Amino acid sequence: MTQKDYARPIRLGMVGGGKGAFIGEVHRFAARLDGHHQLVAGALASTPEKSQASGAALGLAPDRIYDDFEQMAAQEADRPDGIEAVAIVTPNHMHFAPAKLFLEKGIHVICDKPLTSNLEDAKLLNDTAQKSNALFVLTHNYTAYPMIRQARDMVANGELGRIRLVQSEYLQDWLTEEADNKQASWRTDPKRSGAGGSIGDIGTHAFNLSCFVSGLEVEHLAADLQSFVPGRQVDDNAHIMLRFSDGARGTLWCSQVAPGNENGLRLRIYGEKGGLEWAQEDPNYLWYAPFSEPPRKITRNGPGAGEAAGRVSRIPPGHPEGYLEGFANIYSEAAAAIRAAQSGTKLDPAVHFPTVQDGLKGVQFIDACIRSSQNNSSWVDLA
Amino acid sequence: MTQKDYARPIRLGMVGGGKGAFIGEVHRFAARLDGHHQLVAGALASTPEKSQASGAALGLAPDRIYDDFEQMAAQEADRPDGIEAVAIVTPNHMHFAPAKLFLEKGIHVICDKPLTSNLEDAKLLNDTAQKSNALFVLTHNYTAYPMIRQARDMVANGELGRIRLVQSEYLQDWLTEEADNKQASWRTDPKRSGAGGSIGDIGTHAFNLSCFVSGLEVEHLAADLQSFVPGRQVDDNAHIMLRFSDGARGTLWCSQVAPGNENGLRLRIYGEKGGLEWAQEDPNYLWYAPFSEPPRKITRNGPGAGEAAGRVSRIPPGHPEGYLEGFANIYSEAAAAIRAAQSGTKLDPAVHFPTVQDGLKGVQFIDACIRSSQNNSSWVDLA
Amino acid sequence: MTQKDYARPIRLGMVGGGKGAFIGEVHRFAARLDGHHQLVAGALASTPEKSQASGAALGLAPDRIYDDFEQMAAQEADRPDGIEAVAIVTPNHMHFAPAKLFLEKGIHVICDKPLTSNLEDAKLLNDTAQKSNALFVLTHNYTAYPMIRQARDMVANGELGRIRLVQSEYLQDWLTEEADNKQASWRTDPKRSGAGGSIGDIGTHAFNLSCFVSGLEVEHLAADLQSFVPGRQVDDNAHIMLRFSDGARGTLWCSQVAPGNENGLRLRIYGEKGGLEWAQEDPNYLWYAPFSEPPRKITRNGPGAGEAAGRVSRIPPGHPEGYLEGFANIYSEAAAAIRAAQSGTKLDPAVHFPTVQDGLKGVQFIDACIRSSQNNSSWVDLA
Amino acid sequence: MTQKDYARPIRLGMVGGGKGAFIGEVHRFAARLDGHHQLVAGALASTPEKSQASGAALGLAPDRIYDDFEQMAAQEADRPDGIEAVAIVTPNHMHFAPAKLFLEKGIHVICDKPLTSNLEDAKLLNDTAQKSNALFVLTHNYTAYPMIRQARDMVANGELGRIRLVQSEYLQDWLTEEADNKQASWRTDPKRSGAGGSIGDIGTHAFNLSCFVSGLEVEHLAADLQSFVPGRQVDDNAHIMLRFSDGARGTLWCSQVAPGNENGLRLRIYGEKGGLEWAQEDPNYLWYAPFSEPPRKITRNGPGAGEAAGRVSRIPPGHPEGYLEGFANIYSEAAAAIRAAQSGTKLDPAVHFPTVQDGLKGVQFIDACIRSSQNNSSWVDLA
Repeated sequence: MTQKDYARPIRLGMVGGGKGAFIGEVHRFAARLDGHHQLVAGALASTPEKSQASGAALGLAPDRIYDDFEQMAAQEADRPDGIEAVAIVTPNHMHFAPAKLFLEKGIHVICDKPLTSNLEDAKLLNDTAQKSNALFVLTHNYTAYPMIRQARDMVANGELGRIRLVQSEYLQDWLTEEADNKQASWRTDPKRSGAGGSIGDIGTHAFNLSCFVSGLEVEHLAADLQSFVPGRQVDDNAHIMLRFSDGARGTLWCSQVAPGNENGLRLRIYGEKGGLEWAQEDPNYLWYAPFSEPPRKITRNGPGAGEAAGRVSRIPPGHPEGYLEGFANIYSEAAAAIRAAQSGTKLDPAVHFPTVQDGLKGVQFIDACIRSSQNNSSWVDLA
Repeated sequence: MTQKDYARPIRLGMVGGGKGAFIGEVHRFAARLDGHHQLVAGALASTPEKSQASGAALGLAPDRIYDDFEQMAAQEADRPDGIEAVAIVTPNHMHFAPAKLFLEKGIHVICDKPLTSNLEDAKLLNDTAQKSNALFVLTHNYTAYPMIRQARDMVANGELGRIRLVQSEYLQDWLTEEADNKQASWRTDPKRSGAGGSIGDIGTHAFNLSCFVSGLEVEHLAADLQSFVPGRQVDDNAHIMLRFSDGARGTLWCSQVAPGNENGLRLRIYGEKGGLEWAQEDPNYLWYAPFSEPPRKITRNGPGAGEAAGRVSRIPPGHPEGYLEGFANIYSEAAAAIRAAQSGTKLDPAVHFPTVQDGLKGVQFIDACIRSSQNNSSWVDLA
Repeated sequence: MTQKDYARPIRLGMVGGGKGAFIGEVHRFAARLDGHHQLVAGALASTPEKSQASGAALGLAPDRIYDDFEQMAAQEADRPDGIEAVAIVTPNHMHFAPAKLFLEKGIHVICDKPLTSNLEDAKLLNDTAQKSNALFVLTHNYTAYPMIRQARDMVANGELGRIRLVQSEYLQDWLTEEADNKQASWRTDPKRSGAGGSIGDIGTHAFNLSCFVSGLEVEHLAADLQSFVPGRQVDDNAHIMLRFSDGARGTLWCSQVAPGNENGLRLRIYGEKGGLEWAQEDPNYLWYAPFSEPPRKITRNGPGAGEAAGRVSRIPPGHPEGYLEGFANIYSEAAAAIRAAQSGTKLDPAVHFPTVQDGLKGVQFIDACIRSSQNNSSWVDLA
Repeated sequence: MTQKDYARPIRLGMVGGGKGAFIGEVHRFAARLDGHHQLVAGALASTPEKSQASGAALGLAPDRIYDDFEQMAAQEADRPDGIEAVAIVTPNHMHFAPAKLFLEKGIHVICDKPLTSNLEDAKLLNDTAQKSNALFVLTHNYTAYPMIRQARDMVANGELGRIRLVQSEYLQDWLTEEADNKQASWRTDPKRSGAGGSIGDIGTHAFNLSCFVSGLEVEHLAADLQSFVPGRQVDDNAHIMLRFSDGARGTLWCSQVAPGNENGLRLRIYGEKGGLEWAQEDPNYLWYAPFSEPPRKITRNGPGAGEAAGRVSRIPPGHPEGYLEGFANIYSEAAAAIRAAQSGTKLDPAVHFPTVQDGLKGVQFIDACIRSSQNNSSWVDLA
């Protein structure tokens, strides 16, 4: 169980996440579930009025509902009871500025993915984070599902032997037709989402997960991006061939135009000695097939699941944990790291969270996909 | 979405749920997730020392960590900022006394199931609750899974036609062998769990769910109870035939000795026009088979799912919600009811939570199973 | 692989199975698949004209298409190249007379289930078969699925420990409404199907399979039969509690009014050391859960599957075999037994086929279900 | 139902398929199941002795067991009761010579895939077939699964709208380690299998199926082939990006080194209006997701399945048909075509079977994959 010490929750602010937002609310659920964070301040929306209304609905004190993130950073940094961490849950193009500012103020940052909307910003933010004493946590939330931790652990322990294949896919259907809701609007607008469409929104998750579980780096890729819906300015489907370090190969397929798929993030890894399969929509199970033995269904907290999964699980097997629990694990890992940093104690090496470097790699992945696709799917380096 | 108004969380106390407890921690996750409750007081364990240690770990103020529930009831009832509701998460035989006392103090009660460890207590508690101004909420948490709400709604709307069959099962394997952990210990001790073993611990859930979704009452049952593990004093497996109101029939099978099953709660309902199937271990989906049409997979918040499911869902389809989210729905429904009661406003008729009467029926179910089984599985009335 | 010696197929006749019949055609597929039988004669329908037309379509020689089974028995018994075996595929009430006659003529009988339409006939036929030199093979085809053989073998080898629970169900939906096709007509007519409806048509399969795999006998049962469709004269749903030899318990649920179920025959067996699950609609897999280990998926001919399954499999794992292959296994087992009988050699002890005694037990099961249900679900003996 | 007229089976010969062969036995099961063919002659093995032994075990007349295919072609062509069709089931490099010879003799050819072991042979054989009066049937057996016919029909009827994505995979694990059995030996030997390993053995199936169901042609592909097992001379895994006619895109992944996969052939097709998913290991079901409606499970012969599936089905839904039934459908389609050719009648337009042109395309696919992979995965034309 991740939760250890509830004695004093971490004081949290939020940038973005006003009424009608999706991911902001997810971050709040995640922050609340384990009790390690308490939301106390926010610059929640694009106008002072909307921000006030959203903050009031969340029970924030009126004087800690801010017009914009600059105001929040300035005032909270001066308060003795100011926020210790900030969650940044704005559209992609608005991650960079607040992240940079809060890092510079020494306030820990928990930021949604992808890191930024372009590679230049990503590099700058990485530089800023390296120089800052504050932590930077990127919410590649799928890395915190217990059975993903289990899978990573099994790979690291050599249970699959040398890895040959890393196959991921992330399939959705919500952009099958032209959509005009708030979510679709900014995610298909290159000004706000960046040059990547599906590759940024969901492809980066699959990319990050492939590397996280396999322990390998993508060295080269060849991509074929498509925009199937007429008038769409970003990709809504992508086929990507991958060459990993250490000779492994793989593919990544992401799509937002595959009817019948809701959030079909699936990972399959095969090594010389065995295979693993996991699906986000059924996340409490990990299929493990040692070569020439019957496949086994490993359940979260059940027989065969180890400590790497157990420490981020809350309840017995057969009682499903889901997306919010996985997301909450990131927040609880962040809390553990923040507390260690504050107290100057050594962080438990079992604690994992995606970093700014992971975020930079994600933006490099987006950039590489676009470069390759524009060059007739030729192999390109990731760096 | 259930969460509406976070402006002031309800002040919550807890009886039971100290270190090492399972269900107490579940209640705390559930109370935190949506932000409608804040745990501020507790009589958490069987000794003052354990209670203090548990309360401190939870960040409770020292003066609100009590030696026992009587002390908590007395002192909290006198505080201007005293608890508004109490969660009772003790073993079965210790539900009755605190529940009765808090109801008498006018403090709302959220109590784990089964209601009590014997029928006499259940009837008394029902009487007490009827006379109290305080609400009584029983955490038959499975009723709050979104797709269970969806199923109930579809049955009520006549989409299955007249119901013929209601089949439920709840299968576990953790008591396959003699176990000596804390959970197993009290759950197989008739002094603490009551006369029912598997029928009380998990059978009541299946029973409650069968009635909740079908909208029918069980009128008669015939039961064959078994204790397979040598020396076990309560049933660890039960086969029960059911006769419902309105001519429907069904069976209920609960087991704690079925290897390979973790929490296999499954409900299948068939009517003149169609069938529904749902499984707790895969709770985001409801299978709907209109007779002579292809079966359809209805997903939480997806196409085909209606408002009854949507109002207790938090996130988009394909991102699984699980056990804690379902349990949290009970707490959020309770919060809505408590706030309506406090403000004297009319409660939204969409709000559902299991009541003390549901609890009484559950204890009657346990009692009837034992009577029937002792009488060679003859049909018995439930009342 | 079952097929060993194709040098000379067994000469086969058929009673019933004319145009429009379902099960007769299944028997023919089954007889052809492995090449051990050749259909050469038939009394296929209720009139000489229909029989001739059906036989011609099957390529039978005109002089071996008979008006009725008596004529076929008389003439074929006299031919030097007469049939060596006969398949009886008529409605239930017409199994007895031809089966008895062919047995008396020394011609091997392969008969569809249930054995007869009443208990008296079943006993007489059993007596006849015991006295005959000819073999009697009952096509409880599900016993010949490879993974059922695997399951039986694992139980017999003690891999589950002492058996505690044997749970079976066979669910269909095709009689949800009043039906007027040929199949529904005779199967719901007690004059032709016998007193049992769903219990005879499908319940006997579940009953037979429960005993076959567990190696146990049903000693007592308590049944609650229903006829949900108005005007139906036989049961279309049944709930049955079972007490097996050696202290095992179980239930059997069969239904023909469960929308969304096609041929949902499912068997679950639990012992002190582990559990097994199998489903007819997905027959190439057997789930094996050793207690306190991860469940394993054993595939036909795959790792973990043994010789008991392998000898009745034809192709590699991952290439599904189905219903006809299972049915064909009965025919190939019958061919092996017939050839051993003809040559006076010892039959391979691995060969299994359901016998007339199994058929008698099935009719006793039907009889016991009706007796119990008429006596308010009291426990009755099977004999 | 495919079986119509059993009056006289087609006389069939076989080249290859002696003892120990896999696919030859599959062809014999397929030829027997529906009764449209009778095996009467064979050149079954590489030596006269082995051929005689294999033929005798199959019950062939001694004078129709031949030393080699040339002898068989010569003698059978001269017999008044000579074979009407020949099944060629040798390793890939031995398809060309017998196929060419029998076509030239006017004997219908049923040939295993891939068509030949090199492109030159494929083109020559195509030319020969075009000039011959005899039919050429390639056993891309997966095209004959009922739900594949259903899928093709739905695509052709526009139920998915314009097709955007065609994704296929065929995953096995049997070559994860160096294997030394007969099957592995020739399939990994470029002299016998041709230059393609996994792409020829299983990739061609996925390729053929993608085109068959979508009704589209692959115009360009970019491939990354791997040989993971040290010393292996052919690919054992391949990642292929596809550009289809009419703007559709797709990927094809085939692998023989993916532990836990037996015959994981899976097809997913998405169009503007909906999606379809099908898996060979669970072939009786087709998942159909109309955009913005709940996904539907269409079952073979069940509600929602049409005549295209029904005419190649034998038994009711819920009774699984499998690999041999699908393979037998090719033989029955071939029989229908042969009989139409023999009688000069018009062939039912519903009859489908893969042709020599399909075979040529498959060999072009292999060739293109190798060319692309050797050229650093550049896009290449298929022709």
